[in-house]
Amino acid sequence: MILTVTLNPAIDVTYRLPRLTVGEVHRVAEVSTRLGGKGVNVARVLHQLGEPTHAVGLADNDFGRALARELPATFLPELDDVRRTLVVVAESTTSLWEPGHQTAPGADRRLLDLLADRIGEATALTVSGSLAPGVPTDLPARIARLAAAAGVPAILDLDDAALAAAVGTGAVLTPNEDEAARLLGHHPEDPVAAVVELAERHGGPVVLTRGRDGLLAYADGAVWEVRPPAGVSGNPTGAGDAAAAGLARGLAAGSAWPEILRDAAALGAAAVVVPMAGEIDPDAYSSFRTEVSVERIDLRGV
Amino acid sequence: MILTVTLNPAIDVTYRLPRLTVGEVHRVAEVSTRLGGKGVNVARVLHQLGEPTHAVGLADNDFGRALARELPATFLPELDDVRRTLVVVAESTTSLWEPGHQTAPGADRRLLDLLADRIGEATALTVSGSLAPGVPTDLPARIARLAAAAGVPAILDLDDAALAAAVGTGAVLTPNEDEAARLLGHHPEDPVAAVVELAERHGGPVVLTRGRDGLLAYADGAVWEVRPPAGVSGNPTGAGDAAAAGLARGLAAGSAWPEILRDAAALGAAAVVVPMAGEIDPDAYSSFRTEVSVERIDLRGV
Repeated sequence: MILTVTLNPAIDVTYRLPRLTVGEVHRVAEVSTRLGGKGVNVARVLHQLGEPTHAVGLADNDFGRALARELPATFLPELDDVRRTLVVVAESTTSLWEPGHQTAPGADRRLLDLLADRIGEATALTVSGSLAPGVPTDLPARIARLAAAAGVPAILDLDDAALAAAVGTGAVLTPNEDEAARLLGHHPEDPVAAVVELAERHGGPVVLTRGRDGLLAYADGAVWEVRPPAGVSGNPTGAGDAAAAGLARGLAAGSAWPEILRDAAALGAAAVVVPMAGEIDPDAYSSFRTEVSVERIDLRGV
Repeated sequence: MILTVTLNPAIDVTYRLPRLTVGEVHRVAEVSTRLGGKGVNVARVLHQLGEPTHAVGLADNDFGRALARELPATFLPELDDVRRTLVVVAESTTSLWEPGHQTAPGADRRLLDLLADRIGEATALTVSGSLAPGVPTDLPARIARLAAAAGVPAILDLDDAALAAAVGTGAVLTPNEDEAARLLGHHPEDPVAAVVELAERHGGPVVLTRGRDGLLAYADGAVWEVRPPAGVSGNPTGAGDAAAAGLARGLAAGSAWPEILRDAAALGAAAVVVPMAGEIDPDAYSSFRTEVSVERIDLRGV
């Protein structure tokens, strides 16, 4: 069973309108609502793939109860409310993201206790997304150490301070290029050099996520360049979460890195073609698996 | 005690941003949330004035429980969720109104039973705003007849079909000029002729609400033109609800129509100067009461 951890859940709301005009009143005919947050999206993709998963995190009572009706989930009621992320789809897409709600004191300890209880059944663990206000910056790093102590592979999809705090934990880090540059303190001209520098500093695998350019990974002393199929377009939100689901599933199965990375890239691309984050297109996934290219990069020149 | 009825409640959400740009992602720093709906706003104003009130309506469990912590309220849990009305305040104000949620079958009967239980304690009753999907169009009219049978004055602030169904109930109707024109089937050149035609068709008082131009009322065989103080500016949302609160309070007290109308117009103007609907500025209200003009219009020329 793969544990996914969400420390800043969201209710993803979509309004569909013919047109959005600043300064006017709009009656919204079509509203759709979905429980989200990046870790929830990882769990949704695993669940869709038939992979046993359990979504864990911090939320309020309503969110936890409602999510548990959709997939195996345990959210501690540590927030007084859950933020909304509003996407207004009209001629173009306009997003309004509410700030997260304050976390109750001691929530980090209670979540670690819950994870300690569950880690024995876990085959992999992910921590994805931002932290609700009041969550200590190093909580994802502490979760990664708990997983490492139990021999469970961990994937951390974090940004900013939480990412910085996770360097050295040995977990798989999945920064994008901007996040990697901030962490290194400079914008490296060569992404291969960046991923190697980061992985050496970290002492563990780094999977650089590069959007349409795919993945660039350093693991077990080798760099792999992974290119998704060309011409895939759609909604990139949730692609990283589908890729994280692929990494977690591959590590849980003990697959080889080239195979894990191929699967992660195919799942990421298969999420782009679906309008909703947290879902993949199974047919696209099947064909993308054969279309992803994985190449080992010779490090002698780096 | 004044009963206020809300048949399509809303959670009023305000986002404050430096700028709203269509097609972009915005992190919203400031979110405020308030339980609303027009009848709730009427009750809030009455409550603020120290007038005993009880807000009644259809909502879900969360809404009813939360509102009852703020003011006396009984909302039947007949909706599966409560719509949000989002106001984005940036360089200008952009509004996005979600549609109401479906009402459970039989909700109208259960609400009438609740009102039948409470009407004996009531001194006046208001029904304000739109109807949630599934609420029969004639429910406000049936509520007005229940009030009339108990000798309780009723004020109906409705639009479209619900307003049309309420003609003939004898309750006070408070359409705006557009609503009156739709009801009459023509846009009368003279608002005095319109209010007289409507009141004669209705067989009861009509208070035409005209925004900055104030109120034009036909009651007890006389037409009254009520002018608010000049130069009042601010947020007109909620002004009609404050005026309805004034009408309800005046009718409950058995005041004379010129006095009732003066008070309603002063309350409406005192709501405009407050940014939040459902609230008045008490100091502005005091001075506006002396500044409102109420004139009887000679009907011989009409």
